[in-house]
Amino acid sequence: MSAVSHLNYGLWRHPDDWSWRHTELEHWTSLATTLEDGGFDTLFIADALGLLDTYAGNAAASLRTGTQSPLDDPLLAVSAMAACTRHLGFGVTVSTTYEHPYLLARKLTTLDHLSQGRIGWNIVTSQLDSAARNLGLAQQLDHDERYDRADEFMEVVYKLWEWSWTDDAVVRDRVRGIYTDPSKVRPIAHHGRWYRVPDAHLSEPSPQRTPLLLQAGGSPRGQAFAARHAELVFVAGAHAEGIRRGVEATRALAVQAGRGPRAIRFIAPVTVVTGADDREAGAKLADYRRHYDALGAVVHYAASTGIDFSTQDLDAPLVHRDTNANRSLLAHFTQDSTRDRPWTLREALDRPQGFGRHKTIVGGPARVADELQAWLRETGTDGINLAAIVNPGSFEDFAHFAVPELRRRGLVAERPAEPTTLRERVFGQPRLRADHPAHAIAARAGSASEVSA
Amino acid sequence: MSAVSHLNYGLWRHPDDWSWRHTELEHWTSLATTLEDGGFDTLFIADALGLLDTYAGNAAASLRTGTQSPLDDPLLAVSAMAACTRHLGFGVTVSTTYEHPYLLARKLTTLDHLSQGRIGWNIVTSQLDSAARNLGLAQQLDHDERYDRADEFMEVVYKLWEWSWTDDAVVRDRVRGIYTDPSKVRPIAHHGRWYRVPDAHLSEPSPQRTPLLLQAGGSPRGQAFAARHAELVFVAGAHAEGIRRGVEATRALAVQAGRGPRAIRFIAPVTVVTGADDREAGAKLADYRRHYDALGAVVHYAASTGIDFSTQDLDAPLVHRDTNANRSLLAHFTQDSTRDRPWTLREALDRPQGFGRHKTIVGGPARVADELQAWLRETGTDGINLAAIVNPGSFEDFAHFAVPELRRRGLVAERPAEPTTLRERVFGQPRLRADHPAHAIAARAGSASEVSA
Repeated sequence: MSAVSHLNYGLWRHPDDWSWRHTELEHWTSLATTLEDGGFDTLFIADALGLLDTYAGNAAASLRTGTQSPLDDPLLAVSAMAACTRHLGFGVTVSTTYEHPYLLARKLTTLDHLSQGRIGWNIVTSQLDSAARNLGLAQQLDHDERYDRADEFMEVVYKLWEWSWTDDAVVRDRVRGIYTDPSKVRPIAHHGRWYRVPDAHLSEPSPQRTPLLLQAGGSPRGQAFAARHAELVFVAGAHAEGIRRGVEATRALAVQAGRGPRAIRFIAPVTVVTGADDREAGAKLADYRRHYDALGAVVHYAASTGIDFSTQDLDAPLVHRDTNANRSLLAHFTQDSTRDRPWTLREALDRPQGFGRHKTIVGGPARVADELQAWLRETGTDGINLAAIVNPGSFEDFAHFAVPELRRRGLVAERPAEPTTLRERVFGQPRLRADHPAHAIAARAGSASEVSA
Repeated sequence: MSAVSHLNYGLWRHPDDWSWRHTELEHWTSLATTLEDGGFDTLFIADALGLLDTYAGNAAASLRTGTQSPLDDPLLAVSAMAACTRHLGFGVTVSTTYEHPYLLARKLTTLDHLSQGRIGWNIVTSQLDSAARNLGLAQQLDHDERYDRADEFMEVVYKLWEWSWTDDAVVRDRVRGIYTDPSKVRPIAHHGRWYRVPDAHLSEPSPQRTPLLLQAGGSPRGQAFAARHAELVFVAGAHAEGIRRGVEATRALAVQAGRGPRAIRFIAPVTVVTGADDREAGAKLADYRRHYDALGAVVHYAASTGIDFSTQDLDAPLVHRDTNANRSLLAHFTQDSTRDRPWTLREALDRPQGFGRHKTIVGGPARVADELQAWLRETGTDGINLAAIVNPGSFEDFAHFAVPELRRRGLVAERPAEPTTLRERVFGQPRLRADHPAHAIAARAGSASEVSA
């Protein structure tokens, strides 16, 4: 996120942390080169469109703790990072709720051009009431309705990306004076419930056409959406067993929808604290924990679940209230089939042997590699989303201490000599797999009766 | 524009021109360093949100001639250019019609942060029916209504930029654990006809707070909007006398609105073809004219005026039809009080001694400096918007041949040793002048009765 604190609540107070420099370009370019040099595949960039104000009904606690505020637009830093790297992918979060598909399609095509095919799109539908309130909606759309609309949004962008321009539309014929062959640019004629987009895409096809599609759908409706559209799914949770169930459920839904069992790759969040040896890593964790701000964690958790926890006792069982969506979110965040009693707020937010509510691995290179290997096996995931605690610090430590050992075990691939697109790195091909529904949807473009010539 | 041809119709066919590389980052970073090294103040970036399809009622001719198509999103390349420069300003075109003020305010604040105060915003209301059609409007809003809504849009962003966060809101107090002092972040409580934005800005104040405000209002309503809001006004036209009248009229309106006579600086477009001497420059012009594509010019002119010229004889008097807006646009594009007979299409689009429909200056360094000096005096403008014919080529030539002579005459300022904000370069101060209406508008923020605590 372009904020001092996304998940590392309070760590901006740590003397090593310079996250407050997120308003400066050099913060982003040095992060990108650190990741590229360190062997990372992709930088994942989260975003939100409103202040966090569920806790106590106002934004004061999020402002005071710096939790996801102030919050700048992270999409605008991507080209600077792309300019100083050749391999690193960028997973950008853009909501389908407040942007029109015709312009969002052009944005992501542009970034995919500028980065030479290194863009992933984390599709979100925006859950914050504070965003809805300031963006012209009297109140938030119903959760399932947001996803229904997002489904149609995807239809529109698939038609624009996969069908509107043929690969050979731009001919650049200097002699005949033809830049684009108009017969190879097709109006999509989309006339749906939510969107009307009669014309052709504004941009010529980018290296990936459709950017790599990422999604993190926790609710049943979100999971169905992910199973249908996503190529890379983030599964939240700190428990291997819960994550494995999420992976299997989404994969089964994808197969039901006609996609292959390997059509989706899965990623879960992991926090790693490492150093020269276990002792050094343990000392770092203790130091980080001293800078952890539990209030920031509660503020974020309240916004994620829609529940105002400001009067909740940290050690009493968690209550859900109001809506089915709240109940399902709460269940999602606390998923752990091995427990037979309700969670307390403290337990949900912070694991005593770790950091925050994610899986935490603490140790020297060998222990980190052992535990990561076991974690991937137990969860059935294909990779991790490494959450930073301090920046700079966490990514550098991982690259310096953990990556060499992970490479030795074949868990981090050697980088190809020449850059490839992001999708090639994940699936071995630059364009969407043949079993992705975008192909069938795009094939239905251009068929509305009122299309003009 | 992020397209091969904005105003230099057909010149993508010239062997020197590499504009088709606009999909590559290096196109933008090398353009930015050329301009910065060449002594330019600002890169102005145009944009549009639809294909040009007024001509013959479809986009075929614009696609074939490469006129403003394919068209990528230019905003996304700015951070890469900011990262490789220190002084260059960026005037970015963003429409008020299809974007919500709450998110647009965050975008421009973010870019102003990342560039350390080098952002100008060219405020447009989007005239293309093709944009309206694809972006959820059944038809284009009426021209004056677009400006009425834009006025309210400006109210919202002034409140967010100038009032919502105090300069000292971010305290970053590591000891007390306070990142932002919530008492210094104020909800703007805007409840207007078009927009409801109850909450505070998402971002902390950037170096300029409000980016430098640019506008190009040709119609009477556009001129009134510019007189009220703009700090830098683009005056179109090829005739010194018509431009002078535009400058004087806008200045008079600004003074009526309570702003000082120097509250607005004026810029007019000029095309310069230069070389070692007049002969070399003349030979270049002849070469460029051979690559000029009149059809591209007609396609653009049709979209700008809303008139389908596909059946118009090039040498018959121009006709206006349909609407007052068309009539006023046509008058605007052909303004020249010294003429007593109607224009032909050929005359409106291309001047025989120049290039395209702008003022053209052709010659070696001394002649260019003489004519520019006379032009600035006759028009009463403060600077020029140099239109490229070939890229690379036009900017390099101007920097190499013209700038040294202009510097000797004091027409191009020496660059300060340390970078400054864009507004400091133009007005000597980083924040809006005291006579700008944003201050009074922002002071009314937060006063709606339904504001919660």
